[in-house]
Amino acid sequence: MELWYTERQTPYAGITCLVRETLCHFRTPYQELAVIDTVQYGRMLVLDGMVQTTEQDEFVYHEMIVHVAMQAHPDPRHVLVVGGGDGGAIREVLKYPSVESATLVEIDEAVINAAKEYLPAIAGALDDPRVRVLVADGIQHVRENQGKYDCIFVDSTEPVGPAVGLFAEEFYAGIYRALKKDGLFVAQTESPFFNRDLIKKVFARISRVFPLVKLYLASVPTYPSGLWSFTAGSKCYDPETGAGRPVMTRYYNAEVHQGAFRLPVFVRELLEDS
Amino acid sequence: MELWYTERQTPYAGITCLVRETLCHFRTPYQELAVIDTVQYGRMLVLDGMVQTTEQDEFVYHEMIVHVAMQAHPDPRHVLVVGGGDGGAIREVLKYPSVESATLVEIDEAVINAAKEYLPAIAGALDDPRVRVLVADGIQHVRENQGKYDCIFVDSTEPVGPAVGLFAEEFYAGIYRALKKDGLFVAQTESPFFNRDLIKKVFARISRVFPLVKLYLASVPTYPSGLWSFTAGSKCYDPETGAGRPVMTRYYNAEVHQGAFRLPVFVRELLEDS
Repeated sequence: MELWYTERQTPYAGITCLVRETLCHFRTPYQELAVIDTVQYGRMLVLDGMVQTTEQDEFVYHEMIVHVAMQAHPDPRHVLVVGGGDGGAIREVLKYPSVESATLVEIDEAVINAAKEYLPAIAGALDDPRVRVLVADGIQHVRENQGKYDCIFVDSTEPVGPAVGLFAEEFYAGIYRALKKDGLFVAQTESPFFNRDLIKKVFARISRVFPLVKLYLASVPTYPSGLWSFTAGSKCYDPETGAGRPVMTRYYNAEVHQGAFRLPVFVRELLEDS
Repeated sequence: MELWYTERQTPYAGITCLVRETLCHFRTPYQELAVIDTVQYGRMLVLDGMVQTTEQDEFVYHEMIVHVAMQAHPDPRHVLVVGGGDGGAIREVLKYPSVESATLVEIDEAVINAAKEYLPAIAGALDDPRVRVLVADGIQHVRENQGKYDCIFVDSTEPVGPAVGLFAEEFYAGIYRALKKDGLFVAQTESPFFNRDLIKKVFARISRVFPLVKLYLASVPTYPSGLWSFTAGSKCYDPETGAGRPVMTRYYNAEVHQGAFRLPVFVRELLEDS
């Protein structure tokens, strides 16, 4: 018998892959959680039926959400990841010796535990002594911690369920206040092929809060359309300019940092309309 | 009843999409051909069970296989497309007023006819007076036409069936001879996530024939992994340097031209090993 997992990424299209084994599958207080072992992509974390991360291609997403801002900031010491309970973004943050503290605020403890148990190569960094793991509401944490962070990463699920508030202008204003006076942040902002309205709205919202806003792209095979966007909001440093500090990676490098901001015509047009 | 078309892009993973209607489906002398109408991607040309082009995302592939070389060459007048029976590459070639002749050599006439009937927005340019359509073997055409072309595009299917010879070193040597003394060519060379061995082999083969060889990338949602590679071989002009001549596009622009050559670490490593 062959078991195939299919995610309908839109009502009309999706990806499908052969499954070796379902490692866990249950309801948390916030969402449906599964970890499945697939032949093509290795182990895969699925929340509410949507692929969050896989062993094979997680490196692209986690490197690209983190390193652009970490290289744009000259000396990131205190870093916050909102969401990202799998630990992949924290792992990338810790690659910089300048980092003194890395705080993870994940609302759903079950995500953290499942990642620690089934995705240790992604979640392993959560045990680093510089890491503080808080099972809490990221919106509230940002509100209660002003002027504290050099870099903030919003490593959220899609804007449904618990993540809706993480795409609101009020949250971006909270992030502005939670950053130090020269801080910057990056949020994952979905696919430019499939989520054009969201990208336009989010870009406009962040532009009303931050003086410098730029969108960049990376290729993540298991995410809808394979092309993913990130939006950076910054108080002073240009997100497009990386310091070129050495870091061990498989996707990100100084060239990719620059190339990721060179946007296709149809993406550029989205931002001009927004 | 819902009909879903699923392509297994590897034995273990694929894409799937909801189908409105099968417009045609038959065997040609060379391959199985279908045009289906999908809700997500519009009409889709499928050869031997593999998506070749769709109305929604064809612009990325056709613009990116063509414009990089057309902008790297200072004055492309005579252009050859091998394969590409859908006409999309020819359409892009004709956007340059410098072009005096655009020759299409497609081995399978049924592809041309199906594209003309069901994909007129892609194939329409085949009726332009500058276009010469030859139903013939591209390998033989290249062998018999020496020193003739400014730019050649190898717009092939995957290296199975009729396209195998289009990935051979002997064919690349034939292309070298078919080009003028300052000519360059581009071939589609599959996904860096799924076809690493092929990319390495082809890069090595082209490097034994051409003094300048560079690989670049673009995001095509309906192709395996969503990230696609193109390999350019050139006699003198650097493929990475575009002239910035104005051209109406939806993906390609002068920025994308440069960004497409900024390769992720794992892709760069493929080429260094090859």
